[in-house]
Amino acid sequence: MSPLHLSRRRLFGTAGAGVALAGAGAVAGYGLSGTAGATADGVVPFRGTHQGGIVTPAQDRLHFVALDLTSTDRAAVRDLLARWTAAAERMTAGRETAEGGALPANRYVAPADTGEALGLPPSSLTLTFGVGPGFFDKLGLADRRPAGLAPLPRFQGDRLDPARSGGDLCIQACADDPQVAVHAVRNLVRDGFGVTEVRWSQLGFGRTSSTSTGQATPRNLFGFKDGTNNLKAEEPDLLERHVWVGDEGPEWLRGGSYLVARRIRMHIETWDRSNLDEQQQIIGRDKGEGAPLSGTAEFDVADLAATGPSGPLIPDDSHIRLASEQENGGVRILRRGYNFVDGSDGRGHLDAGLFFVAFVRDPQRQYVPMQRRLARSDALSEYLEHNGSALFAVPPGLADGDDHWGRALLA
Amino acid sequence: MSPLHLSRRRLFGTAGAGVALAGAGAVAGYGLSGTAGATADGVVPFRGTHQGGIVTPAQDRLHFVALDLTSTDRAAVRDLLARWTAAAERMTAGRETAEGGALPANRYVAPADTGEALGLPPSSLTLTFGVGPGFFDKLGLADRRPAGLAPLPRFQGDRLDPARSGGDLCIQACADDPQVAVHAVRNLVRDGFGVTEVRWSQLGFGRTSSTSTGQATPRNLFGFKDGTNNLKAEEPDLLERHVWVGDEGPEWLRGGSYLVARRIRMHIETWDRSNLDEQQQIIGRDKGEGAPLSGTAEFDVADLAATGPSGPLIPDDSHIRLASEQENGGVRILRRGYNFVDGSDGRGHLDAGLFFVAFVRDPQRQYVPMQRRLARSDALSEYLEHNGSALFAVPPGLADGDDHWGRALLA
Repeated sequence: MSPLHLSRRRLFGTAGAGVALAGAGAVAGYGLSGTAGATADGVVPFRGTHQGGIVTPAQDRLHFVALDLTSTDRAAVRDLLARWTAAAERMTAGRETAEGGALPANRYVAPADTGEALGLPPSSLTLTFGVGPGFFDKLGLADRRPAGLAPLPRFQGDRLDPARSGGDLCIQACADDPQVAVHAVRNLVRDGFGVTEVRWSQLGFGRTSSTSTGQATPRNLFGFKDGTNNLKAEEPDLLERHVWVGDEGPEWLRGGSYLVARRIRMHIETWDRSNLDEQQQIIGRDKGEGAPLSGTAEFDVADLAATGPSGPLIPDDSHIRLASEQENGGVRILRRGYNFVDGSDGRGHLDAGLFFVAFVRDPQRQYVPMQRRLARSDALSEYLEHNGSALFAVPPGLADGDDHWGRALLA
Repeated sequence: MSPLHLSRRRLFGTAGAGVALAGAGAVAGYGLSGTAGATADGVVPFRGTHQGGIVTPAQDRLHFVALDLTSTDRAAVRDLLARWTAAAERMTAGRETAEGGALPANRYVAPADTGEALGLPPSSLTLTFGVGPGFFDKLGLADRRPAGLAPLPRFQGDRLDPARSGGDLCIQACADDPQVAVHAVRNLVRDGFGVTEVRWSQLGFGRTSSTSTGQATPRNLFGFKDGTNNLKAEEPDLLERHVWVGDEGPEWLRGGSYLVARRIRMHIETWDRSNLDEQQQIIGRDKGEGAPLSGTAEFDVADLAATGPSGPLIPDDSHIRLASEQENGGVRILRRGYNFVDGSDGRGHLDAGLFFVAFVRDPQRQYVPMQRRLARSDALSEYLEHNGSALFAVPPGLADGDDHWGRALLA
């Protein structure tokens, strides 16, 4: 009754078909991109130059977890990373964490896999691994901590909650089925017992960015299209310049990136009382098409110099102007955020917002000056509250034979 | 650029195609049920004998909100219910809350619709409305409060958080796209400003029950199939007996039901340390197929009398025995719960569990004795903590011409 070598994909072929339809539909969309996306059966390649989950066409759902090390034993951490890497490779392929994991032949042992993803397809799962500042301190590796991992400064208006900030390690799980993302994080967290513990965790119910030209631009909780001008998988030269760490970084990080995470509460009640014109002036785009106010179609290039009877068509304090390449010395970032609603705030409102995730080559030269400018001048800031913040260095992808994400770092 | 009469469905036909694929795929699955499901374009009929979201084939995602009345003005509440009903009918059809809602022709007014669902298909959205005990007290209608709405007793092991319990009103939004469910709740909450405020809110990322024979049985966070033996839309006689309020209820509630909501934290870390045999004995089913331990296939009828060398095949303290019709004097309930993960608990663990939702004809005779038995004797209780609880009376569906859910109640 319990097949010894149960694969999630095989189950999918039989019992799971009903549950799986949403995932299968979504996968088809990825075929449009032609790069870095999932194969026809929803598997994103696990090994490669870069980790998955960065330029992979942004999946629909997110489960992000930040963990703290509870051990300073480097060998124990190395062992954990090897176990995590092996389990992650299996799960992204739609398999259990270990062979016979959920349904061990010997039923008197605790299952190695928790089982809630049995029967679900791979769902374009990616698992992206990063290390925070504390990883280096706790393991006696302070001399290897890259300069980019210096603490982010306090930005104007920040109201950071330590319980939603920081972390020695992170795992970003993205998938088109949230149960697949949750299952992956839960099983990795479980395997870390005795070495790591959860510091904070965030679910995102809907992507707010496209990372491939084949994807439709989604809307954020202000009702606007978001990520129109994002970096895309189809722009390798720009990714080299803005996302992937190059020779300036330590060897273990070359081909990797930095992940900036910010939990941004959105004051949707206040926003909803502003009129359409105000909203459009604040964003710098029209709400229907997502076109810059200097143009008529979503992908029209914003003309920051264009003026009308009452001044610049794209206002001086508008979000797209202040976040633009032109206003930031040519800096661009790869955004990969998600909408969230985490219950209510105890004061009669929904606790809703954007879990902002960005990948950058150098947070100190890209994210920090851009966010400093936005925090100070962006008309949108009035409607935002940053209450979580974290920064991680994300190693490059694994070559064939690499046994874990931290191999070069811990060598 | 901003069409005056923008329909979400029309946008879907053009710009939103990429985003929409997952929803469209899921809708196709509903065709299997043949009853109470969405039409081919993902619209669940809004009007009918019963409200949607009860026997509607359980959608993939949930946003549930409980609200408190901040006004005791019956006319203001009546007006709000009329606005809510009109907006809900439009949104379930894939439209904005009001004509030209997101993109008003006059851009100097605040949009009536917040816009984040523009371009998304109807996604089988249902909105199910209920009233809690406080609704009657605050509006001077104590004499209309039905007997079924008496407070639930404290069950053994309950650790209820008042901030996750109760509520004068509830709205259950279910959809295959979470953004569509969130959009609906957010817009109704917004429209209630001055009359209602959010008491608590809960997202569920994945359904844990089937409510139609056409649906595959999903898995809960213990890794087991859940809801195999649930009441189904295709069993109208059983629904009449166990779900729909009949002549015993007040006229305004006949054809309606009661909604029991319980936020159940699952101690997944402890569960994950138990072995497969223990897990199966606790549930009373095998983990792979979901078959009762007396049988071999998921839908085999559990034989509670069957014994093996060491006693009953389905143990005395197993969950499926104690929740069974036979052990509960013929009582059955319609379950419609969702898995949740709400970040972490501050003690190194994920805050994960089941948001239990059940619809019953009489909570005092169905849910209360069943839960009393489970809380006392169910081996599974050791792994559960009920920390939220609420009870609502759910009016029947709207006939053509009915202007709001509370018409008969407030008449």
